[in-house]
Amino acid sequence: MSARPRVCVLGSGSWGTTFAAVTTDAGCPTTVWGRDPEIVRSIASDHANPRYLPGVELPEALTATTDAVGAVSGADVVVVALPSKVLRRTVAPLAAHVRPDAVLVSLSKGVEHGSDRRMSEVVAEAAGVGRDRVAVVSGPNLAREIAARQPTATVVAATTPEVAEQVAAACSTDYFRPYTNTDVVGVEIAGAMKNVIALAVGMAVGLGMGDNSRASIITRGLAETARLGAALGADPQTFAGLAGMGDLVATCTSPLSRNRTFGEELGRGSTVEEVVARTRQTAEGVVSCGSLLHLARSLGVDVPITEAVTAVVSGGLRPEDLARLLLSRARKPEVE
Amino acid sequence: MSARPRVCVLGSGSWGTTFAAVTTDAGCPTTVWGRDPEIVRSIASDHANPRYLPGVELPEALTATTDAVGAVSGADVVVVALPSKVLRRTVAPLAAHVRPDAVLVSLSKGVEHGSDRRMSEVVAEAAGVGRDRVAVVSGPNLAREIAARQPTATVVAATTPEVAEQVAAACSTDYFRPYTNTDVVGVEIAGAMKNVIALAVGMAVGLGMGDNSRASIITRGLAETARLGAALGADPQTFAGLAGMGDLVATCTSPLSRNRTFGEELGRGSTVEEVVARTRQTAEGVVSCGSLLHLARSLGVDVPITEAVTAVVSGGLRPEDLARLLLSRARKPEVE
Repeated sequence: MSARPRVCVLGSGSWGTTFAAVTTDAGCPTTVWGRDPEIVRSIASDHANPRYLPGVELPEALTATTDAVGAVSGADVVVVALPSKVLRRTVAPLAAHVRPDAVLVSLSKGVEHGSDRRMSEVVAEAAGVGRDRVAVVSGPNLAREIAARQPTATVVAATTPEVAEQVAAACSTDYFRPYTNTDVVGVEIAGAMKNVIALAVGMAVGLGMGDNSRASIITRGLAETARLGAALGADPQTFAGLAGMGDLVATCTSPLSRNRTFGEELGRGSTVEEVVARTRQTAEGVVSCGSLLHLARSLGVDVPITEAVTAVVSGGLRPEDLARLLLSRARKPEVE
Repeated sequence: MSARPRVCVLGSGSWGTTFAAVTTDAGCPTTVWGRDPEIVRSIASDHANPRYLPGVELPEALTATTDAVGAVSGADVVVVALPSKVLRRTVAPLAAHVRPDAVLVSLSKGVEHGSDRRMSEVVAEAAGVGRDRVAVVSGPNLAREIAARQPTATVVAATTPEVAEQVAAACSTDYFRPYTNTDVVGVEIAGAMKNVIALAVGMAVGLGMGDNSRASIITRGLAETARLGAALGADPQTFAGLAGMGDLVATCTSPLSRNRTFGEELGRGSTVEEVVARTRQTAEGVVSCGSLLHLARSLGVDVPITEAVTAVVSGGLRPEDLARLLLSRARKPEVE
């Protein structure tokens, strides 16, 4: 057996820290890079990240640093776990330090504002590597459950099966099971759209609607995700799988999901600004919905839920009108 | 506008009573038939069914009777809302009294033990009518939410669009929205399988597994449902729709689902007999899983979740082994 790859994770939020714990448990020497010295110190010294993973004990072998150049230059696998907003400007200055044979992994969800690029495209551009060297990981992966070592399955996608398998091997443990796939586009569109659909589901829940309505919005949300994916050349099977339906169901039904919770607050009458002020963080769906709508429109794809969510987030529609819009359509055949 | 059809609903359980309330609200004169005089009296006199729908106020115009022949012989639409176990022997004696132009509707889920027949097939045979006159209604339809007039969408399927539209018109209200479909096979297989998958999800929850595991089982459950449907000639799109994914998500994630709750008790270590003794009712998935497994095997379809659930229900497998079986498979491509 070959030596285990050295992993560097850029981002010390809940998903980045959790994924670093997984690769450590998988036997890979792993370092988390974070901007906040307090969080880095906690991870390195106390094996904990109380801000993002309260109550979770991290592996002792996991290290952390505020030195991004040092972390990246020693890594065989560079994992990017940053919000879509800051991804490009955080990765670009590190491009010269990425090893020529390194593989990159995007854990980030969303579509870049302005460019409408998927996160793996932004990673490839910012790091100056070919897209074939960037993998993505996505699935029903609520970070806190994985950090608690609950059994979880995921999808690792890359344009070549070899890169996908290389990354899968670096994060495979007895509680974290990666399945490989070559449909990077489908996996990323599913990962970006699920945050928007989770906002819509949250709004419905916040308005007092029940499990029937919630399931209908999830179902129609996956249909519009698959339509957008199809227009971008994705494999339809991806949307029926763990990174599509699996992630969407987990995100929309778990009280642990930030997007779902954010939507609930909007449904109860708060504005985006009020929720951000109260929780001191935003939700990825709030950032990405406009870009996803822009992308869908440029392709002529009908995405009524994304359209309604974007209108609510920008203050142009009340959540109660969104609910009415989504559920009170004329009687008609289900499939046109 | 033509006169509203007269509706008779056979079965005074939660779904039968709720659907009767819907057709009443849709303006159709509706009668519920029930075997239990106490329940019939409550519906007819108190506009309530405290045993199956505690706290729900039924429409005043809804009537109820213990006279099945009288109820059926006056009906333009005969709705069957009976457990799969008793469906054939309850409907057969009424065959001579079904009006020659009546349409039948099956709300029942499951596959008949012994014959492996779908419920609409059993209804057609027992009532002595052609299959083209039997519609099915299925979707994310937790009865208690509909009874509380929460917005809900559903699918009405019949072999001809005309029959589907006729039934949809009889149950369309401002809170209950039917979409029509001609894939009776797909809708019924989805409705039968979701109860089995809900048992598996319940077991996982009862064993303390989290939302990631639950979402994975739901995703893989829909995949095996679609495989079985495909072997029977169903339309793949049905499984991505409200009667497929929608109903599965609602059933597997709602605390109101009987099958999910039954599975949780099994996951916590109770036997089927103990749960039945305690709750005084069984769950449809417990009755149907063996027949569905038999049907799948006869068609050479791989249904690992159904196989595991059937083994647990029959006492041949412990729930903790089911969970291990479903989640600890070798690392591999997601789609073979």
